[in-house]
Amino acid sequence: MKVIIFYNPLKLFKKQLDEIIALFEKENIRVTGCFPAQSKITEEMASQSDYFVVFGGDGTVLKVAEKAAIFSKPIICLNTGNLGFLSAYSGDEIKELINDIKNGNLHFSKRYLLECSIGNKTYFVLNDVVLIKSQPLGTIDIEIKIDGSMLYSFLADGVIISTSTGSTAYALSAGGPIINPNLNVIEIVPLAAHALNVKPLIIEPTHKIEVFLKTLSHDFAYVTGDGDVLYQIKTNESFVVTGSEKYIKLAQKNNGYFFDALKQKLGFGRRFE
Amino acid sequence: MKVIIFYNPLKLFKKQLDEIIALFEKENIRVTGCFPAQSKITEEMASQSDYFVVFGGDGTVLKVAEKAAIFSKPIICLNTGNLGFLSAYSGDEIKELINDIKNGNLHFSKRYLLECSIGNKTYFVLNDVVLIKSQPLGTIDIEIKIDGSMLYSFLADGVIISTSTGSTAYALSAGGPIINPNLNVIEIVPLAAHALNVKPLIIEPTHKIEVFLKTLSHDFAYVTGDGDVLYQIKTNESFVVTGSEKYIKLAQKNNGYFFDALKQKLGFGRRFE
Amino acid sequence: MKVIIFYNPLKLFKKQLDEIIALFEKENIRVTGCFPAQSKITEEMASQSDYFVVFGGDGTVLKVAEKAAIFSKPIICLNTGNLGFLSAYSGDEIKELINDIKNGNLHFSKRYLLECSIGNKTYFVLNDVVLIKSQPLGTIDIEIKIDGSMLYSFLADGVIISTSTGSTAYALSAGGPIINPNLNVIEIVPLAAHALNVKPLIIEPTHKIEVFLKTLSHDFAYVTGDGDVLYQIKTNESFVVTGSEKYIKLAQKNNGYFFDALKQKLGFGRRFE
Amino acid sequence: MKVIIFYNPLKLFKKQLDEIIALFEKENIRVTGCFPAQSKITEEMASQSDYFVVFGGDGTVLKVAEKAAIFSKPIICLNTGNLGFLSAYSGDEIKELINDIKNGNLHFSKRYLLECSIGNKTYFVLNDVVLIKSQPLGTIDIEIKIDGSMLYSFLADGVIISTSTGSTAYALSAGGPIINPNLNVIEIVPLAAHALNVKPLIIEPTHKIEVFLKTLSHDFAYVTGDGDVLYQIKTNESFVVTGSEKYIKLAQKNNGYFFDALKQKLGFGRRFE
Repeated sequence: MKVIIFYNPLKLFKKQLDEIIALFEKENIRVTGCFPAQSKITEEMASQSDYFVVFGGDGTVLKVAEKAAIFSKPIICLNTGNLGFLSAYSGDEIKELINDIKNGNLHFSKRYLLECSIGNKTYFVLNDVVLIKSQPLGTIDIEIKIDGSMLYSFLADGVIISTSTGSTAYALSAGGPIINPNLNVIEIVPLAAHALNVKPLIIEPTHKIEVFLKTLSHDFAYVTGDGDVLYQIKTNESFVVTGSEKYIKLAQKNNGYFFDALKQKLGFGRRFE
Repeated sequence: MKVIIFYNPLKLFKKQLDEIIALFEKENIRVTGCFPAQSKITEEMASQSDYFVVFGGDGTVLKVAEKAAIFSKPIICLNTGNLGFLSAYSGDEIKELINDIKNGNLHFSKRYLLECSIGNKTYFVLNDVVLIKSQPLGTIDIEIKIDGSMLYSFLADGVIISTSTGSTAYALSAGGPIINPNLNVIEIVPLAAHALNVKPLIIEPTHKIEVFLKTLSHDFAYVTGDGDVLYQIKTNESFVVTGSEKYIKLAQKNNGYFFDALKQKLGFGRRFE
Repeated sequence: MKVIIFYNPLKLFKKQLDEIIALFEKENIRVTGCFPAQSKITEEMASQSDYFVVFGGDGTVLKVAEKAAIFSKPIICLNTGNLGFLSAYSGDEIKELINDIKNGNLHFSKRYLLECSIGNKTYFVLNDVVLIKSQPLGTIDIEIKIDGSMLYSFLADGVIISTSTGSTAYALSAGGPIINPNLNVIEIVPLAAHALNVKPLIIEPTHKIEVFLKTLSHDFAYVTGDGDVLYQIKTNESFVVTGSEKYIKLAQKNNGYFFDALKQKLGFGRRFE
Repeated sequence: MKVIIFYNPLKLFKKQLDEIIALFEKENIRVTGCFPAQSKITEEMASQSDYFVVFGGDGTVLKVAEKAAIFSKPIICLNTGNLGFLSAYSGDEIKELINDIKNGNLHFSKRYLLECSIGNKTYFVLNDVVLIKSQPLGTIDIEIKIDGSMLYSFLADGVIISTSTGSTAYALSAGGPIINPNLNVIEIVPLAAHALNVKPLIIEPTHKIEVFLKTLSHDFAYVTGDGDVLYQIKTNESFVVTGSEKYIKLAQKNNGYFFDALKQKLGFGRRFE
């Protein structure tokens, strides 16, 4: 069995990584690479592994997702802090993780990515693509077309195009519902729209969503993907988001895991009286 | 070509129905039955038709949905009032409807039903199953289990278990998002929950949702399905909702139809300045 | 010092009441009456007291509020269960309550009532007046006029007209904001409106709000006040709600009490990670 | 009668201003000054006027509000575009405006300001004070104290502290209710909080709201007031907002004006079927 380790370089240092690698090797799991999460790796390097093991929080998994999808490697995440929505193991469960790899005791959830085409490039994201104003003042005027037909336009701070996996991240903050991440859907959530009659909208991943920046009061707005800036967008420019055929396989402890994370991380449904 | 007509008996009377039937027959489409929407029909009667043609609003379609699913007959709805979410034709388009049937110029949207098991019976619904208090005062205490595991409990007026088709009906009123009806998902929306940390939740149709009535201050609460009372439920009773393998095929004019209905019927995304 | 005790007859029985009265008398506080909360009392009886002491939850206080306002008697509530929004003392603090009365160590919050005119009667409420459908199915069509001018109309399960005190009760469940109860305002919150473009609205207590029942699909709808049915309203009937000049004085432990109750009872602002 | 004119310099040019001034002078209303809205004027200059007449939209009024409050001059606004929430006259009603001034046919709404103390300075705002992150990524961790006591903390894009006048501006976009601007209240609305259990909160203007920036992932965040940047705030800094004793008097056509603007500008309560 061979793994590549990706880690959050702000949380894990050389000494800890050496100890982690030793634990894997002791159980005859070869660590064929150990990289900061945002590193680029080649197909050849990826082919030397059965799994991508991620040490970090949800943000660290997001930085690994695109390469995991491209190279078809399952992700197993141990959260160095509290449990996250994307991690299967918490900080003190490294031996359990190693045993589960060794014994093939792993369950995977298939998570489809979004594909965002902007400025002659295509990006793949696991959580969301966000258009957001660059300045603290004013709004931007956004038009949304679905499969070439105008759906609606609104003044807002921005708009979030999210997967079900991203529904518990920024889309939730903007008022979106909670969506079981096993569902392959796209959610469009306006961000602080100055309008009463817009709502979160959930559609099929086959739709082509075109986001057009009609007017903005400042120089540019940002398009971000999974927490990275992808592009500085100007008036009269647009980008397209659609469901991708690419997906990742993400290790999960059991089927109820998502609901447990909801309760633990968001206090979902907790009773107070 | 043979059709059975179902109609809203409060909107259409004998004279109008005779005229409608004549229009069909004139184009060599046989009308093998003409019934009020809530009528029960036998399998043999159903087998004498290619389509169920519905004259009425969304509520009329709901009354036809279960039999259309059971007998695998596509539904084509002409709305006698304004366009609805479930009708493809508006009141003045009967000739267009007849021509489209004649020429096979019909597009269908597949809509999965929910299956609700309560009191030793099973019901199939197209929009939603609703648990709602029977009295104007007080709340009911509801527990929701998913696949046998407790998800959450809350005090509320009730809870709505909805398909994507139902997302623009009662679930919307209770704060749910808008969901493209082509998606096969289940939405759980608490109805006026007295809690901050519950939200609409969207899950896969394979989940088994058990709704348990923990306490209520009055005699009973109602369980309704697609606008009919299914059951008077008492404390310590429960019911189960899950996605059905049954579905209907619903005629639609074109792919953008759902978004058009959103704008027309709900003012979705309309600009006012 | 003289008090009248009002209690929740489902929670407190003769033996306990006798013990409570003994505790008061021991400290030379005369108990001039001891009644179930919903009892009617005469002006003369009321005049034999300095305070109305309430044993029960928020619902028990609501049943005492109108008479406390009419007879100008301050309310001091000990919650027999968990702390409520309207109680200053929790179940085990009866000695503290008695001492605070004895030593004049009491702080009062002034809470204005609403005045609801319906069917030739006028009612005074502390929390809210609610129009709500009587049946589990369908909606009612409601028109709201402010000071004689049509404001808006909508299809809904009902509408809540609330004080700031009531903002943490049913109005919260229906999507209203949290309002510090010291503020003398009126909040109008549609209950499960089938519309995107209605929102909670907060206005001055001097406005005259006329609620007109335009259509309903069943026999009647209910108008309730503070958890009691006031009226069975029919199509084409209306009622009027406005801020009252009457108010109650409600004992509170300290100024931050409201925010403490928010956190304790609703988990408001609690962090989970 | 004497007026000072303030205008939006991006909308009105010299030629138009000369024509406007001529219309006033023709009716014996002296124009003692004509300035871009953001201009600073002295007390002496202000004293040479009975009214501040504003030509522009709501944003233009915001730039005049502080000086109108300090120098106690009523504001009369003619909107050069569509009607705004703060304008009494639309673009083609200049003669009506002049006649109303001449004949004293003016009604004023009293609008209290907020006072924001930050970085040794105090600012007065009519709509809102906003804390907002400076970067497209990440959240900021915000603590809110009321009168010295911790109320709550949350991760968010920011927080809006708004007057009732500002309730139809940014606070609405962030999910706040609509508040009649005659009410003297403060509204606290988290901006895209990553939490389920925070809600808009409405409190009295006498409260001292301290907003403390606990952590942020980037260099600084912005504090803005009425659409101007007031301060670049860093970790461990805070600012205080409270209701001011200063107010403006804003011309309104009639008492129902606010509700009309709601319907016209936001489509509030409009029926679509």
